[in-house]
Parts: sequence; C-alpha cells; structure tokens
Amino acid sequence: MSAGGAPPRTPPLVSLLTDYGLEDEFVGVLHGVILGACPDVRIVDLTHGIARHDVRAGALALRNALPHLPRGVHLAVVDPEVGTERRAVAVGCADGRLLVGPDNGILSLAWAQCGGVEEAVDVSRSPHRLEPLSPTFHGRDLFAPVAAHLAAGAELAEAGRRVDPEGLVSLALATARVEDGCLVAQVIGVDRFGNVTLDATHETAAEIGLAVGRPVELEAVGERYHATLARTFADVGAGEILIYEDPYRALALAVNRGDAAATMRLRENSEIRLRVR
Amino acid sequence: MSAGGAPPRTPPLVSLLTDYGLEDEFVGVLHGVILGACPDVRIVDLTHGIARHDVRAGALALRNALPHLPRGVHLAVVDPEVGTERRAVAVGCADGRLLVGPDNGILSLAWAQCGGVEEAVDVSRSPHRLEPLSPTFHGRDLFAPVAAHLAAGAELAEAGRRVDPEGLVSLALATARVEDGCLVAQVIGVDRFGNVTLDATHETAAEIGLAVGRPVELEAVGERYHATLARTFADVGAGEILIYEDPYRALALAVNRGDAAATMRLRENSEIRLRVR
Amino acid sequence: MSAGGAPPRTPPLVSLLTDYGLEDEFVGVLHGVILGACPDVRIVDLTHGIARHDVRAGALALRNALPHLPRGVHLAVVDPEVGTERRAVAVGCADGRLLVGPDNGILSLAWAQCGGVEEAVDVSRSPHRLEPLSPTFHGRDLFAPVAAHLAAGAELAEAGRRVDPEGLVSLALATARVEDGCLVAQVIGVDRFGNVTLDATHETAAEIGLAVGRPVELEAVGERYHATLARTFADVGAGEILIYEDPYRALALAVNRGDAAATMRLRENSEIRLRVR
Repeated sequence: MSAGGAPPRTPPLVSLLTDYGLEDEFVGVLHGVILGACPDVRIVDLTHGIARHDVRAGALALRNALPHLPRGVHLAVVDPEVGTERRAVAVGCADGRLLVGPDNGILSLAWAQCGGVEEAVDVSRSPHRLEPLSPTFHGRDLFAPVAAHLAAGAELAEAGRRVDPEGLVSLALATARVEDGCLVAQVIGVDRFGNVTLDATHETAAEIGLAVGRPVELEAVGERYHATLARTFADVGAGEILIYEDPYRALALAVNRGDAAATMRLRENSEIRLRVR
Repeated sequence: MSAGGAPPRTPPLVSLLTDYGLEDEFVGVLHGVILGACPDVRIVDLTHGIARHDVRAGALALRNALPHLPRGVHLAVVDPEVGTERRAVAVGCADGRLLVGPDNGILSLAWAQCGGVEEAVDVSRSPHRLEPLSPTFHGRDLFAPVAAHLAAGAELAEAGRRVDPEGLVSLALATARVEDGCLVAQVIGVDRFGNVTLDATHETAAEIGLAVGRPVELEAVGERYHATLARTFADVGAGEILIYEDPYRALALAVNRGDAAATMRLRENSEIRLRVR
Repeated sequence: MSAGGAPPRTPPLVSLLTDYGLEDEFVGVLHGVILGACPDVRIVDLTHGIARHDVRAGALALRNALPHLPRGVHLAVVDPEVGTERRAVAVGCADGRLLVGPDNGILSLAWAQCGGVEEAVDVSRSPHRLEPLSPTFHGRDLFAPVAAHLAAGAELAEAGRRVDPEGLVSLALATARVEDGCLVAQVIGVDRFGNVTLDATHETAAEIGLAVGRPVELEAVGERYHATLARTFADVGAGEILIYEDPYRALALAVNRGDAAATMRLRENSEIRLRVR
C-alpha cells in the first residue's frame, strides 16, 4: 500500500436557492438537516433572496449560476403550492448534476442547460423524508433530506418513484422579436441595483443594426429615452442609460450610478422598444 | 495498527444566532474569531435577522431550530445589556448540547427542550476571552471565543465559574386560554412573510371544536374576519385567511399569497380570539 | 514513517467583502467559482452589505475585520469603475496576508494595518481569469479566480504583472482636530443600528478633557444635544445619547435603544463638535 494513501475525496456539494429570506431561521434549519444526513457536505447558498413565490426569477437565477458551480446536488425551493398535490422531484441531468425541488418549472431552465433530463423521480413520498411532513415546510422535511442523501451517495432511483421526464413542468420564456426595424423585448428580471435583464441578446440587437457605441432610442412605459449601447456602466456618464450585455450574455439596461428600473418604471414583463437613433 | 486508521472525526459544529444583521462585518468577524480558535469547525448561521434586542424572538427561533441541527455548541447573542453586570453563560444540556450567550433568557427555551440544564458556568471573565474586552461587542471578544474553545474540546468547567442552574434567567411565555367557547391567544412571532405564530397548538384549538376544514370567526385588533382551519396555504383562495399548524407545531395565521400581520395589523403580543363559525 | 502521518493541513482561507447584497445570486456564484479552483477552501463572508459603490465604507470594514481573521486571501470588491481602465490588483502584505481587488483604494486601509505592501501585481489580465471576461462582473471572472488560485498555492508573481507598490491608489481619511477646546470630528461610518463612527479616538477626546462619565455638549447639523461619555449603551438611559469607544477603538455616537444617525440626522462626512459641559 502506498504511504501517501488515496487523494482526499472532493467533498459532496449541495447548493441552495430559495425565497425564504435570511430574516428567519429557515435557511439555518436547511443547513442543519443537510449536515445531519451528510456530515462532510459543502453547502453553497446561491441566494435566498428570490422574491416570494417568483418561480421564474428563481429558475433564471439557478440557470445563470449553475455553470459557475462545481457539479453537485442543486436544491431550489420557490413553492407557492407547497403541501398541495404538486409533485416534488429530483432530476438527473446529462452533465451529471442532480436537481431537487417542486415540479413547478423552477428547475426547468437549469436542466435545459445541463444537457437535458436523463432520469426523473417523484420524491413526494421519498424514503428520505422526515416525518411528520409539515404541509408548509417541505424545504426542511422533504427537499433538504432528499438532497443530502443524494449528496451522500444515495441512488437517484431510490429517492422516489421514477416518472417520465416528458411530464415535468417546464417554464416558457418570452423571446424578443424584431418589428419594423424595432427590437421589442420584455423585462425578465430586475436585480437589486435596478439593472434590468431583457429576453434578448446581442445577436438580436445586431439584427436592427445596434453596435457598441451607437446611440439608441428606447421606448418604455409610454416614455422615450436616449440610451447608448455600451460595454460597461462607466462607459456612459453618471445618470445616463446604457444597454449592455450582462454577465450571463443577455441584453440588459442600466443607469450608470443609478437605478434603471426605477428611472423608467420597469418591472418584470414590462415591454420595451429599441431602435437605432 | 490497521492500515485504514481511525474513521474521520465529524468536525465540531458551532451554530450562530444574533440580531447583528448582515449589513456590517460583525458576523464575518465572529466567523473569523471562531475559525482562529477551532480551525476545523463547521459554522451554521441559523439567522442574524432577529429584530434588534428582541430576546424572545431569538429564544423562540433557537428553540425551533435546534432539533434540526446536529449536536454542537450553539451561540445566541441578542444582548441589549451588553457591557453591564448581566452575566454571560455557557450551559451544558442533558442531551449533550452546549449553549452560549448572555444570561437574559435567550437560551432558556432551548435548554428546556434539550432535557434541561446539567451544568452552567458564568463565562463573564472566561480565560478564553479576548483582551481588551470591548464593552459593546461581547460577541467577538467573549461569546465567540468561548464557543470556539468548547467546540475545540475545552471542558465546560474550565470556561468559567460554575453557577447554580436554578439562578439562570428564564423567559415565561404566555399561553392561550379558552374562555366562553373562545380561544384567546397571543401573537408570539411574525415571520418575514407576515405569517403569525400564536401561543397555542392544534390541541388547544381542538378544545373549542376547531378541526381542519372548519370555518372560524377570528377577532383581532377590534375587527372580525372569516378564516378556515387548513393544512397549507393553497388550501384556501388567494387573499383568504387560514389558521394552520406551523412547522414547529404551533397554531399560526396566514393569508394565502398575502401578509397576515399587515392585513390584520397584528404584531408581537397582539391578542386574537377564535371561535367556530 | 510515523503511523499517525502528517497533521491535517489547515485549509486555505478566502474572505469576501462586496457591495453585491444577498438578494441576487452574485455571491453564490463567487463561492462556486472559488470552490471550483480551490476545493478545500474555507470561505468567510465578511459582509456583502456595503452600500453600493461606497469604497471608503468597504475599506474601513475590511481594515476593521482583518485582525480578527486567520491569515489568508482577502477579496474586496466595491468597484464603480468595473470594466474601465482602472487596474485590478493582488497585494502581498508584510504580515503574510494577500489582498485582492480593484485598485481604487478599497484595499489601502487594510494593507496599512498589515505591515504595508511587500509586493503588488496588476492582475487585470491574469492567467487565472475566466474568459470571456464580462465587463460588468469582474468579481466572478477575475477577482474570484485570482483569489482562489492564490489560496490554492499559486505564486503571487504568477498572478499578474509586477507593479510598483508606490503607485497603488490609497484612500486618505479625514482626522478629527481640536479647535478652541472643542473636538471637531467627521462621521466616517454608520452601522445598521444607526451607531455613528467618528474619525477620532479616546486619545483625541482626552485632549479636550473628556473622560468616562463626564457630560458632553454635542453640536451636529445645527442642533445641540446633551451626551455622556460612557463605556456601553446601557450606561445611559433609553433614548439618551452616549459617546463611547467602539469595538475597533474609534470614538462613536449611539443612542441607547435608539438610532443616533436618525436622531441627529447624521450621515457620512457630517461634522460634529464635542466639548465638556
């Protein structure tokens, strides 16, 4: 036997994304439950600041973050229908990641990006669940224990009842369109700085002739604004509007040193129009 | 000697609960101090969002969370009298957990649930403390080092001066009462969603004939409301009031997709009355 | 070879301080990137609650927290000029700590306290960076990978291009002065409780004859107040103003059970005057 022994095993990873906030002890309880079932786990809190019940915002944040995380078990709980007949699922993706959460679409943007679903199980009555199952806190009693056991090496097939991946709930995202030389896009997210993500990319912007440095006319909520297609915030003056590629390669709006959502009264699903000025 | 050696030791655990918030670097400093004294510790942040100086809310959150955490050292600091003559204590519970915090009742609901106090020491002048002891940040200079040394294996008796467990400060919680077929309860907590915890249980509710699915008349702050005893939020329509058993088995009020505390202008200590409709 | 083998290596430490907030997934993404490059790292979140773009507040929080952290790699990102020509740097301090962040002064109060800069490299085009480098999220694509590789043992000199430490951007802090028996000080920080840190120390206060227990006349924003020099909050009555030495040995103002900044309408850079009453 070699003196050096085996290399240290990389500890299993569980990431968490919820709308629980950090004001209460809910997130700490998830950590406790996961540690109890998988003592050497690494836990990454992706965020617990998803707006309450905003499944789409959670799905987008999960999809955006996952490529930057080591492979592991990725738990996402935004769950307005907790305790009802909605299913709870665990999903194995083609790239080896495991996703756990309610079957309400929260996981669907992530798996689309992880090579698709290879295997799915309904974990609503998982043998890993804690009893009695609280009807209002499946994060603690169902999702966290399932994720922890999967992280500790339990087989996906043993976490629940196999189901047809085709039957899983998927979110449909709007996509921007070009209309009379105008790019018509919807707001799909607003971060805490008021930066606004659109359902469009640099490629769609190029279709109407937009390019870095070019002035843009922007119409939003009945008002018109001057904006500039730029690389970064400080490329325009303080208080000026820029259109840029955000870190996840989506087209986005910001105000340098300001709050674009507040300035233009934009929120999720608002429609905006862009054209070359 | 076996080639495999001893199984890996489960790392020591310290949990933290404070009213420090996360806006400043205070919580990060606690982590640093604890890691310095106990390098292989696992730290679980139960929450740092307890309302400032709200000892009872901290005590309830600690009591509720502990059963879901692996056994360890559990630090709780909500400490309006920091730097005065109030004692700082470390407490050994019958179930093996160690609790550390100011002697103002913050730990008392937890130890009652952990089998009671077996041993208590006054750590106000603990040899583990950092000097100079800041009169306003005992979390950093006293509680965190004491917790870290206990987690690292130091004896409780060496952390301070032994005191009589009978002399420790305990919180008294109100309890609901039945009066003329009416359940009279007090609000003991409000979470960030506006869900309202009462000092009552399903058992007290059963005394006045309440059962799942039954309509309830609710009186709060001079107004009357219709409510339903339900299992989970989505069992009632959006905007409707439900009464349910919360994840810690207390009776609670919520508004499906809404904010019960705001709707009924409830806060801690508000009194509410329930009767079968 | 000894049966016991080598003692366990203390895992490398990376601390994080940003103005990203916790509402979005940005901080979780930093964790993921760091774990990917340094799997056994310990990550300490000092705080992510620095006010947006407030470089000075970030620099002060970092300086205050560092002495309480084990030695490691300390990342600080408050970066209004992200994506422009401002440099990104990694700095080796005389005490062995490594600091990573934008070259805008955010690190400068920390290195002054860590024995000064021994070596500095411009990491703007570091071989550790992720490509494509997002012009608006250098935390993810540049700073986190550089910090993680340094934590994993990469040489500082290999992280970028060596630069003259003299050319690094430093912050200048105001300092209180004595004028006609009056201590004239500026507000350099306000914590989430409204406690106000001044650019003065107990020593400056002693110059005008202030001592613990003495009444003080305080002038702020055109109003006069009575205050007391005290050791801790509860040394004065609820609602009363105290002047005390904060946990980082700066002179500070608080209102016992209240909010000093709100009461006296103080914010960063406000000037206040103290004299013996």
